[in-house]
This record gives sequence, C-alpha cells and structure tokens, in this order.
Amino acid sequence: MGVHQYFKSLSDLEQIIRCPGKFKYQEHSVASHSFKVTKIAQFLGTVEEKSGQKVDWRILYEKALNHDYAELFTGDIKTPVKYASKELKQLFNEVEEEMTRKFVEKEIPSEFQAIYLERFKEGKDETLEGRILSVADKIDLLYEAFGEIQKGNPEPLFIEIYEEALRTILLFQDMNCVKYFLEHILTDMLNERFTEHDELTGIAMRIIEEHNG
Amino acid sequence: MGVHQYFKSLSDLEQIIRCPGKFKYQEHSVASHSFKVTKIAQFLGTVEEKSGQKVDWRILYEKALNHDYAELFTGDIKTPVKYASKELKQLFNEVEEEMTRKFVEKEIPSEFQAIYLERFKEGKDETLEGRILSVADKIDLLYEAFGEIQKGNPEPLFIEIYEEALRTILLFQDMNCVKYFLEHILTDMLNERFTEHDELTGIAMRIIEEHNG
Amino acid sequence: MGVHQYFKSLSDLEQIIRCPGKFKYQEHSVASHSFKVTKIAQFLGTVEEKSGQKVDWRILYEKALNHDYAELFTGDIKTPVKYASKELKQLFNEVEEEMTRKFVEKEIPSEFQAIYLERFKEGKDETLEGRILSVADKIDLLYEAFGEIQKGNPEPLFIEIYEEALRTILLFQDMNCVKYFLEHILTDMLNERFTEHDELTGIAMRIIEEHNG
Amino acid sequence: MGVHQYFKSLSDLEQIIRCPGKFKYQEHSVASHSFKVTKIAQFLGTVEEKSGQKVDWRILYEKALNHDYAELFTGDIKTPVKYASKELKQLFNEVEEEMTRKFVEKEIPSEFQAIYLERFKEGKDETLEGRILSVADKIDLLYEAFGEIQKGNPEPLFIEIYEEALRTILLFQDMNCVKYFLEHILTDMLNERFTEHDELTGIAMRIIEEHNG
Amino acid sequence: MGVHQYFKSLSDLEQIIRCPGKFKYQEHSVASHSFKVTKIAQFLGTVEEKSGQKVDWRILYEKALNHDYAELFTGDIKTPVKYASKELKQLFNEVEEEMTRKFVEKEIPSEFQAIYLERFKEGKDETLEGRILSVADKIDLLYEAFGEIQKGNPEPLFIEIYEEALRTILLFQDMNCVKYFLEHILTDMLNERFTEHDELTGIAMRIIEEHNG
Amino acid sequence: MGVHQYFKSLSDLEQIIRCPGKFKYQEHSVASHSFKVTKIAQFLGTVEEKSGQKVDWRILYEKALNHDYAELFTGDIKTPVKYASKELKQLFNEVEEEMTRKFVEKEIPSEFQAIYLERFKEGKDETLEGRILSVADKIDLLYEAFGEIQKGNPEPLFIEIYEEALRTILLFQDMNCVKYFLEHILTDMLNERFTEHDELTGIAMRIIEEHNG
Repeated sequence: MGVHQYFKSLSDLEQIIRCPGKFKYQEHSVASHSFKVTKIAQFLGTVEEKSGQKVDWRILYEKALNHDYAELFTGDIKTPVKYASKELKQLFNEVEEEMTRKFVEKEIPSEFQAIYLERFKEGKDETLEGRILSVADKIDLLYEAFGEIQKGNPEPLFIEIYEEALRTILLFQDMNCVKYFLEHILTDMLNERFTEHDELTGIAMRIIEEHNG
Repeated sequence: MGVHQYFKSLSDLEQIIRCPGKFKYQEHSVASHSFKVTKIAQFLGTVEEKSGQKVDWRILYEKALNHDYAELFTGDIKTPVKYASKELKQLFNEVEEEMTRKFVEKEIPSEFQAIYLERFKEGKDETLEGRILSVADKIDLLYEAFGEIQKGNPEPLFIEIYEEALRTILLFQDMNCVKYFLEHILTDMLNERFTEHDELTGIAMRIIEEHNG
Repeated sequence: MGVHQYFKSLSDLEQIIRCPGKFKYQEHSVASHSFKVTKIAQFLGTVEEKSGQKVDWRILYEKALNHDYAELFTGDIKTPVKYASKELKQLFNEVEEEMTRKFVEKEIPSEFQAIYLERFKEGKDETLEGRILSVADKIDLLYEAFGEIQKGNPEPLFIEIYEEALRTILLFQDMNCVKYFLEHILTDMLNERFTEHDELTGIAMRIIEEHNG
Repeated sequence: MGVHQYFKSLSDLEQIIRCPGKFKYQEHSVASHSFKVTKIAQFLGTVEEKSGQKVDWRILYEKALNHDYAELFTGDIKTPVKYASKELKQLFNEVEEEMTRKFVEKEIPSEFQAIYLERFKEGKDETLEGRILSVADKIDLLYEAFGEIQKGNPEPLFIEIYEEALRTILLFQDMNCVKYFLEHILTDMLNERFTEHDELTGIAMRIIEEHNG
Repeated sequence: MGVHQYFKSLSDLEQIIRCPGKFKYQEHSVASHSFKVTKIAQFLGTVEEKSGQKVDWRILYEKALNHDYAELFTGDIKTPVKYASKELKQLFNEVEEEMTRKFVEKEIPSEFQAIYLERFKEGKDETLEGRILSVADKIDLLYEAFGEIQKGNPEPLFIEIYEEALRTILLFQDMNCVKYFLEHILTDMLNERFTEHDELTGIAMRIIEEHNG
Repeated sequence: MGVHQYFKSLSDLEQIIRCPGKFKYQEHSVASHSFKVTKIAQFLGTVEEKSGQKVDWRILYEKALNHDYAELFTGDIKTPVKYASKELKQLFNEVEEEMTRKFVEKEIPSEFQAIYLERFKEGKDETLEGRILSVADKIDLLYEAFGEIQKGNPEPLFIEIYEEALRTILLFQDMNCVKYFLEHILTDMLNERFTEHDELTGIAMRIIEEHNG
C-alpha cells in the first residue's frame, strides 16, 4: 500500500535482534546497527578523503543505510547456513533479490522504483564506497563482540566473532582508513581498563584519606 | 565437547524468539513453544486414545519435544524464504540435516549417536504421532496469534497467521482430536469475552449499590 | 581518548529511550530514531529531486544522521522545560554547543575537528536540506505517536504529540515532499484497518465453510 | 552481616514483580508499590487531618513503607493459597514472623533490633493509621488493575482484582478519606477518555483545515 | 471453561520467573524450565536404558512435563517457607492438591479428569522414573546457578543453590545416569574456559601477525 | 483534573530510568529510588535519635518521599548540564519551581495546595532532616554504582559516580549517622566477596568428597 508501508517497515527493523539464540548482556537491533555502520562509514570516508581519495558521499551513505534492509524479508539466517554450500548461497541470493524486487514493486510508487531497486542492491562491491562499507560493517560487529567480552560474556562465540571480524578488516589493510583504524582505534580498544573490584577499596581509602588529611 | 554442550544448548533455545521482526505484546521462545506443543500433543493423544486409536507415547513425546531443535543451527528463517522455491526448500532441508548430523557427531557420545540422529529427524510424517505433532504445532501458533489479536495488536500479520494456522489444522479434520478441537476448544476461544472499559463503570456502580443497599 | 571513544559513544545512543516517563508499548532509542529519520529524509529528498529541486545529498545525510547526537551530553530534557523561557532556551543551546565543542576537542583528532564541529551543528536551518530534516524528524515522531495510539495507549500525551507533529509538518507545506506526504502517505496511515476481535469469528467461520463447502 | 545486608535487600524488592504468572502490559515491583502506597497514604492522612482527625504521621509512614517487606523472605504467594484455610493462614503468619525475626536478629545491630521488630510487624491494625494503610494498599491495587484494563488486557483476572479492591475499600467507607476517594477520585477514574482510533482522522482533518482556512 | 482455559494456562507458565527477588543476568520461566527438565530426563533415561534398566517412557515424559504445573495455582513460594515446619509443609501440600483437584474438575472434561488428576500428582516418587525426574530437576537448577556464576553474578545465593543442587544429585549416585553425569558432564562444566579480557590482546596480535607474516 | 491525575503520575515515576544513556546490568526507576532513599533515611534518622538528636519524623519522611518528584516535569537532565553555569542552574531551578507550582494549582484541590507546595519544595536544606536526606540520596547512589561495578560493568562512569557519591557523604561526616555509615556499613560493602569461578571447582570437589568420605 505504498510509502506508508515502507515507512512502517523501518520500525520492524527495530524488532530484529542481531545474533539471536545466544545470551547477550546488551542487544542490538538491525536499525541501530545500520545507524552505527553509517556513522562509522562517515568517519572512514573522512579519513580516505583526507588521504586524497575521492569519495562519492551520496553513494557511500546510501550503501551504508540500506545494507541490511533485506533482513526484513528473510529474517535472521545464521551465517553458517548461508555459506553451507555455494549452490545454497547462490539460490539464497536469488530469493533475497526476488523478495526485494517484489516489495519495491508492491510498495514503492512506480516513479521511484528504479531508484529504490538500485538502493537495495548488494552494496559491498569493489568500489571505494563498497569497500568502506565492508570495513564499517565489520568494525561495528567487532565493537558488538568486544562489548560482550568486556562485560564478561563467557560464550566462546563472541571470541570467534571478534576474530572473524578482525580477520576480514585485515583483508582491506591496503586502505588508508583501515591503516588508521589499526593504528589509532584498535590500540585504544585493547588498552581499555577493565574495572576491577580491588580498585574500589583503594579508591575509597584514598578519598577518605584525602578528605581527612 | 559432549553432553555438557548439548545441555547448555537447551538454554540457547530460550534466546530464540519466535516471529522476529514484528512488534509483539508477548514474546515466546522456541523453548516455551516446544513445551506447549508437547503439552498440547499430550492432550490430543489422549483424545485419540479415548477414541480407540493406538498412540505410541514415547514416539509422540520425542517428536514434540525435538521438533524445533534444528532452529539452533539455522536461526529463525522466515517461512516465505524457506518456501520461495522447491529447489531452495530442498537445499535448506539438506543443509539442516547436515548441520544436525555434524552436531550429533561432535557433541553426542558415540554410543548415543544413532538414537539422537533418529530423535532429531523431521517428525511431521504420516504416522498418527506425526500428524498429532502437525496439529499441536499449529494449535500453539493459533494461540500465539490469538493472544496478539486479543491484546489489540494492529499488525495484519497476526490475522494472516491465525488464518493460515486454522487452514492447516482443517487439513487434518478426519482426526478425532481435530474434531474435538473444532467442537469444544475453538468455540470457547471465539466466545472469549473482551474486557471492555464500559463495563468498569457498571461494575463499580453495582458494587457500590450492593454494598450500600 | 580519541575515535575509539567516539565509536563507543554510538552505542550509548542505543541506551537513550525517547519520551521517558510515560508508559509505551514499544520503546524507541535515539539510535533507531536517527536511522529512521535518515531513511525518511532520503525519501523526501528523492521526491524533491523528482520535482526539480537540487538536493545536496552529502549535506542532507550528514544533517539527518547527526541531528540528535548532542542528547548524548544533555540527556533527554522534556520539551516544555527547554521552551519554558526564551532566556532558558538560549542558555541551554549555549551549554549544548559548549559540551559538543569540548567533546570534539577531547575525542576527535585535531585534523578532523573542523569537520566534526560542522557536522554536530544544529541542522534545522533554512536550506532545503535543513527543511527536509525538520519534516523527516516530525514524520518519525508522528509514526511513533501513531504506533502507540493504534496499539491502544490510553495516555493523552500521544494524541498531543500526534497533533503537534502534524501541525509542524504543515508549516512546511509549500514543499513538494510535504505535499506528497499529505496526499499519499498520511491518507494511507489514516485508512489503516484496526484489527477487531469481531472479525475473528467471521474469519474462522468463513475458513471452515470454504474448506468444507 | 549487618546494615549493609539490609540496605542491599532493598534492591531485591525491585526484583519481586507483583501478580506473577499473568501477562501484564506494565509490571510493578514491590519497591515501586511500597513507594506509591506511602504517597497515597500521605494524601489520605492529609484528608483525615483536614477533617479534624489526629494523624500520627511517623507511625503512618512507617506502616506504609514497610508493609510488604516480608515478601523478601516468603516470595510472592498467591492470595488464594494464603487464604485456603484458616489453619494454613495462621501457620503462614507464624512462619513469616519467625523469618522476619531471624532476619532482624541476624542483620540489624542489637541496639536497633527492638525498633525494627516493631517496624516489621503487620501494620493493618484497627488504629486510624492501620486503616489508612489498608485503604492505600487497595487504592494502588485498584490503579494497577485499572491500568491493565485501560490498556486492553483481556485477562479477566484484572476485572476480578478491580472488583475485590473496590469492595475492600468500601468496607472503610465510614472514613473521611474513603468518602473523599469515592466522591472525587474514583469518579475521575471512571470518566477517563479511552483513546480511540476514530478520533485520529477527525483530529488530522481539523488540523489541516484550521491551518489552511 | 474447559480445555481452552487449560491451553491458555500453558502460556501463564511463561510468565512465572524462577528465583524471584534476586538480580539475574538471564531469567528462566517455568515453561522453559519444564522443557529443559524433560529433555535432560530424556537423556538420563537413555543412559539408564543403555545400562540395562527398563524405562517406562510414557511415565517419565509425563512426570517431567507436568512436574511444576501446580506453580500456576500457588505462585512461587520460596523454598525456606515451604520447609519452615513439617506441619506447614504438610498443610501446604494439601492446599496444592486441593487447588489442582478443583482446577481439573472445573476445566478438564469429565472423561479426562482421572487421567489428568494422575498426571498432576507429585512425580518425584521412588520409581526409576520418579528418581530420574528428581535428578533432572536438579541438573537444570545446577545449570541455572552455573550460568549466573559464570556470567559474574556476585549474589552468594547462586553459590548456595549450586551447592544444594549438587548435594541432592549425589543422593542418587547409585543410579547409572548420575554416575554418567558426574564422570562425563560435570567435569566438562568445571573445565569451561572463562573468557578473559587479557586473551583479547593476544588474539588480536596473533591474527595481525599471521596475516602479515 | 485533580487527585486522580496526581495518583496516576506516581506510576509515571516507575517509567523514568535513572542514569540514562549508559549500559546498566540492573536499571532503577525514580519510584524505586525514592522508596530506597526513604528507607535509608529511616535508618539514618534512627541512628541520630539513638545519639540524642531530635528528629522530626514527619518532615524527614516527607522530604525523602518527594525529593525527586519534580523529575516528572523536567525529565532526566544530566548533572553536568544542570551545573554547567550558575546562571543556567538558577534559571533551571526557577523553571522547575514554576512547573511544580502549575501542576499543584491544576491538579491538587485548593484546600490542599499550600500543603503540597510545601511538600514539593527542595528538601536538602540545612536542617537535620535536610542533611539526612542529602546523605541518604548519596548512599543509594553509591549502592547503585557499587552494584554495577560488582556485576562487572566496564563503564568508567560508575567508578566516577562511586567516587563523587562518597566524597559528598564525607562532607557530612560530622553527623552521627555518617560516622556510623563509614564505620559499620561501608566496611562491609568493601569486604564483599566477589564470586569467583575458581571457587566452583573447589566447592564441587569438597561436596563430592564430603559425601563419599
């Protein structure tokens, strides 16, 4: 029934929780993830531009904003399923494209259909913008896994996700933004202080002494 | 790493929420759903037995308890995706079986592997027990949709699920338990009183009058 | 401590719930809201472009993505407070700008500070992009209020928010995208079917009859 | 281990949800309930004082604040269980008192034990303050049930609770504060507007007309 | 009003949270617990059967599925209350039985009442199936406590529950399934790696080195 | 619309979550906080009384119960904003008072307005009761921060809050109740055992040995 349905569907993305089937201290929706990936891509694009690359910002923002929209139609399929066989992955991609196409034809008014079909295409191509999206998507995933590990999640899956995300980022280490990330951001992440109980006694003692000294 | 991993995985089923991507007043996990389906199957089996059918209870309980265990490996794939093409459905089934087989080989000690491979097989076959499972699964789905509609969920999807569940149940209406369901249970569901605000004034007035009369 | 802190702060925006202090069936975070506003702005910009306007997409996306980032520093202050007096509003704005400036100076590396100070400026100016943002922000608010009303929220505040959001949108009705919204989108929203309990009996009866007919 | 344990136990009262085992749109903890009952008792006491009664405020506040503290030891036992037989109720009361006594002896320093034993005694006695507590407790329960009914909860239990709470309040209608409640507060509760979808179209049309007129 | 009420009551078991009144990272409902206990009992029964014992599977599944159904009527009463005195425990059991009997007489059609009265009886008797249930119930409790301890819950109660559950399991160590549990499952549980922050730096360094090596 | 609105507003305080915008393992509402502060103030007042001070209990309870009621009108403004400048703080206080005054004039019947204006005034004055409130408010904040630190929250903000709360308490260390707190309560808090994974193996081994010994 048109754009009203499309606008309403944005709120459904707030209801899809990433990484289902595992205990998490903090849950993240596809809507929040898309927001964060777009903001991260904005920073990475800024680094590339500073380094002399030409960034097509309109394209970059479109890719980042829309990169997970198709999960609305397919739900959250676990990665090992998708990649279980080349044949399955191929078929799955065809189904995803078909469903997206049908949604666009049903809900988007005809004068905008071409634009939206373009917007909902797989964004992770070999262009600079496609590569920035690939990196930004994995950086947010790395932060999600880091958040769980830092909060004490004993589930080994988050260590595996952390490793896999970092490995993928390294595939793009010829990019200026990835070099920047490894040098200036990852370092700070690894240096994060872990709040320790033992500190508390020290802090309390110090405050009391200072005050009375 | 053995049965410990298998026991831990039961708790992961509490983390998979059914019907993701849509606002729901009340969420249901795969673990809760499996419990309710088993209890419903117990009742349906009791009706069949009373009607003179021979029920293999061990088989019925095993089918009901385990019928959604494979969602642990695949996540929650939306039905339209699974059924998008015959080819895709076939491939998905193969992947699902493969993953289940690998899990059993990795976690279940060898002396129990044959038993668990049997337990994790698709349960909805043409036996009496398989047919009871098919009905019980849809009755719980019908109750889930009914719960949302009754609570005021404006999402049309729940009306669609309600219709689809009822249609599937009717495919089994030669069964005694389905006849019983349609005659004695569905009727009560449809007669449910909807709490109305207008009642409140009436109730309050009546109580006050009674008390003072 | 640099960009790492900035990336982490994005996740804090998932923890700020809009419209605190009132019962809501469905909660929305500032992160989700920012995502939806950017997607709505994308559509409105597309309408403007189709109508012959020149849209600066980079600017539009930047404005939409960042428009509520300052809530990270100030928390969620109720609108009536902010607008209680001209003097207070002026002072609040100064404090907000000051805090944003300090954050940029502390966390953003010096070579990017000018860019981020620009990005975090108030985006709702008199440019086409600023006006699109004003409209997109209120459309998402309208949808939030509509969602609560449709789900049965008895709190009159949501009617008030609905009214206020619509009034503000109408202030921009000289814009092509607002005309489009009023004609094609708002109409569909108001025609939404409300799921009724009474329908259920009808549907169940029809399905049973069809099946047996 | 002393007052530290007592202070920590206050937070456990935030973890006991009232009326467990039934779907609720909005949950209430024993901590929140105790806060609201104390505030309601404050208002009722004010009405009594205005009417010329002598209120012992210290006693009233102590009774209201502590009236559900024993749930910490017993958990949330459903009312029908407690009242299933006179004998059982008597035994339960003895157990409750015994557990409270043991807690006080273990955690409260000896110089304060007498005071806390007094504070944790059953507060609903025949004094003015005990009767105000009885009424305040039921008014908050009435509001909890009203909140669910108004939000559309189809569970008949909330109508039953509403009725039972109102009946109990009426047992105290010789009190000035109950007369005030029935005349000025209950009336407003029953006149509450229920937000209707149909209104929305009217409101939207009116706003658009006003704006364009 | 019949089986419809019985089916609806299954969903109420999703609303009863185990171990109320204490902060928990992960909550478990009575419905989920019943599912997990039944699955654990299935495994334990399989071990017994392999060891040459004769398992009555129908009885075992019925006992496990229904073992906590009476909490629907009584709510969640804390264990120390129940066991405060022999007299109280006796009376409490009588009340529980009485309430279950009334429910069966009211909701279950007369032709099935005898069956359901049997199903809702206390299942932990001296039969092999009753003993398997006792063990399975405590194993799930052990996993619940372990889950909290592993996630970092500082509440000493979970250590106490862990101890109490293990002690009870040991009372049944003449059983083959308990021997299996102690030898093969508990060992793995105690060997679980706790995710450590320090690992992260190591992992990141190793990945980067490997990649660049 | 009178006292009905006032009673309903109490429930809105259950919807305002303290310390928004940061991940927390356990959330606390303004309603719960008010309850706990009042209970803590009760204990502190008892200590003062034992030490020979004259406590005006009515005043103390009123101050504690109402001390955060104004957050209903202003929402949760982050402390650094409030204190950003003397001028802003002054203006902000005026707005808060104005809003409270308007609420009282609109909702509280005229015969009770003077009483409620008095009750909603800033309670932290230089009287004994005002000083007890200041301490009680910070003790509850200290417990909130301690709870997060003890559960493993890596956010440095909670260490900062812990420090700030303790520093403020020390400003009142001439008071008997603060001396008592530092000597008997803080000590126990700092001695709290942190549940350690390593303990588990030890405990399990000890139990098994004891049992078999």
